[in-house]
Amino acid sequence: MLAAFMYGAGDVRVETAPDPVIQHPTDAIVRTVRSCICGSDLHPYHSQKEGTRGRPVGHELIAVVEEVGADVRTLRPGDFVIATFAFQDNTCVYCREGLQTSCVHGGYYGRPDTGGLQASLARIPWADGSLVKVPDVDPDAADPGLLASLLTLSDVYLTGYHAAHVGDVGPGRTVAVIGDGAVGLSGVLAARELGAERVILMGRHPDRTALGVHFGATEVVAARGDEGVAEVRDLTGGEGAHVVIEAVGLLPAFEQAAGIVRAGGVISRVGLPQFSQMPLVRELFYKNVRIAGGPAPVRAYIDAALPRVLDGAIDPGRVFDRTLPLADAPEGYVAMDAREALKVMLTP
Amino acid sequence: MLAAFMYGAGDVRVETAPDPVIQHPTDAIVRTVRSCICGSDLHPYHSQKEGTRGRPVGHELIAVVEEVGADVRTLRPGDFVIATFAFQDNTCVYCREGLQTSCVHGGYYGRPDTGGLQASLARIPWADGSLVKVPDVDPDAADPGLLASLLTLSDVYLTGYHAAHVGDVGPGRTVAVIGDGAVGLSGVLAARELGAERVILMGRHPDRTALGVHFGATEVVAARGDEGVAEVRDLTGGEGAHVVIEAVGLLPAFEQAAGIVRAGGVISRVGLPQFSQMPLVRELFYKNVRIAGGPAPVRAYIDAALPRVLDGAIDPGRVFDRTLPLADAPEGYVAMDAREALKVMLTP
Repeated sequence: MLAAFMYGAGDVRVETAPDPVIQHPTDAIVRTVRSCICGSDLHPYHSQKEGTRGRPVGHELIAVVEEVGADVRTLRPGDFVIATFAFQDNTCVYCREGLQTSCVHGGYYGRPDTGGLQASLARIPWADGSLVKVPDVDPDAADPGLLASLLTLSDVYLTGYHAAHVGDVGPGRTVAVIGDGAVGLSGVLAARELGAERVILMGRHPDRTALGVHFGATEVVAARGDEGVAEVRDLTGGEGAHVVIEAVGLLPAFEQAAGIVRAGGVISRVGLPQFSQMPLVRELFYKNVRIAGGPAPVRAYIDAALPRVLDGAIDPGRVFDRTLPLADAPEGYVAMDAREALKVMLTP
Repeated sequence: MLAAFMYGAGDVRVETAPDPVIQHPTDAIVRTVRSCICGSDLHPYHSQKEGTRGRPVGHELIAVVEEVGADVRTLRPGDFVIATFAFQDNTCVYCREGLQTSCVHGGYYGRPDTGGLQASLARIPWADGSLVKVPDVDPDAADPGLLASLLTLSDVYLTGYHAAHVGDVGPGRTVAVIGDGAVGLSGVLAARELGAERVILMGRHPDRTALGVHFGATEVVAARGDEGVAEVRDLTGGEGAHVVIEAVGLLPAFEQAAGIVRAGGVISRVGLPQFSQMPLVRELFYKNVRIAGGPAPVRAYIDAALPRVLDGAIDPGRVFDRTLPLADAPEGYVAMDAREALKVMLTP
């Protein structure tokens, strides 16, 4: 098969690798229909130490089941499926509570033992829990826009949804979204899906914020830092936003979130924090601000979101603005890193 | 009047001061029935710089109304009242949402302009919002235990209640409480009031943890640090507690909370953090742990708690284990600082 590996910062290579095989009776092997590059892939793309062995990369996938292990009960070869970005048995105590990213048997792709999903074939652990069948869609005949939206249910849209969900977004709420990347824009769409009254999108790229408006942003604030904080406070009568979706993960974005969150509100983070110490502890304490978020249990949200995508009510796949063959994945990393592409889809 | 002033670390003096007077038509003047010393008073008692002018101290009070300003509508001289530890108009947008500690007209006692409540007389701003009338109780004839419990509605019990409330404590939940001080013990009682199934109290003082058991703790863990974390994890099948009430405010207590909180759980803090940077950001992110808490809007909880105290269903006043005359307040600080007293009540 063909698969992408990261050898170090700025060094992604697509290579021929051995086809994956069933290792456990709960595994499935799938053949990729679409994969993609995640904003979170850019963190190691900036920082990974150069090594002699490449680390497999990628964690988002729609695919067709090729082979199933003896204990797989809900899937058969030929099924068209969405793979969640983390795998899980979907039966453990955490999974039953909707926190599948803490599954006792769960884990993440992108390690030598699990492989990556920027690949033409992939092994999926706990296939019954980690793959969701898409009914009545033929991937070979489907509209490319539908495939793109289905692919967002693997991670990006439902990561934005998680941010809105754990932020208690609902009717009457004012939501501010920091970051006009694919997760932030997904957060805009999810906030509107959950009934938010106002969604203020903070971002500086006009083409991206235009998509945010399409997704339902009611206001766009281009300013950042103190100026951006002041503008959002003005827009909210001095109070700030009930929910701030912090979709960046960098310290200045968190500080901005702290500046615009309303007393009693929530900062909901879904970008892996790129800092180890959280500042402004007392300021946030005095305001009774909650901090929420983490890796999205997309498996908990996918069943509700899938019909919305299938019936065309939402089109989260519009975050993909470039499609490349898997072999050109390195070019996709360059484009996303340079902010020339919002999110890059990969064909096998 | 007689009032306590802090001149610097370890230096509390009770002095004769001018009687407070009505400054705004929404003020009331009250005559103290009982006041007390708070664990939070010990922070400046450790750190306040020596000065030539004392800072008025104290923020907990039950009292009799002596005089009301022209705009006070719900109170009259002779009313027996509880003063909330922060004052508020109880009508602003935050107050109406139950976040009175963010009241647009609100504030805290203990400053030269507001005075302190460890005093024989006090001026209460926004009296209609900041004083709650206790019906059908004659403070001169009431049982001392009842007076003690009423006094806890000024701060300590309802601060513990806030921790449990914002931690989403409810039936089926396992709650761990870090700290066997008066707030932690109040958190135990509140967690049980909210229906917690198990309440694990972490504390090392047998007389205090015994009171915790009286309040409803189902288990007591005396160990701290890694050993304490391991013990709580053992008690919870390796998972940790759904809600950790962190009633200390010091860094090691927060780290302990991070170690025992269950994935998807909440760390609920009600002690003013004595650190400015929160550690373990990524670890808590990966577990989808929420951070909640802040200054308790006790005004939001007092109406529901008052009947429980009046009918004897709960006796939160048992956190007071020493009573001194106001003139001996310095002795009370010494006793609390030395952990010889859990919480000191002051008579006028």
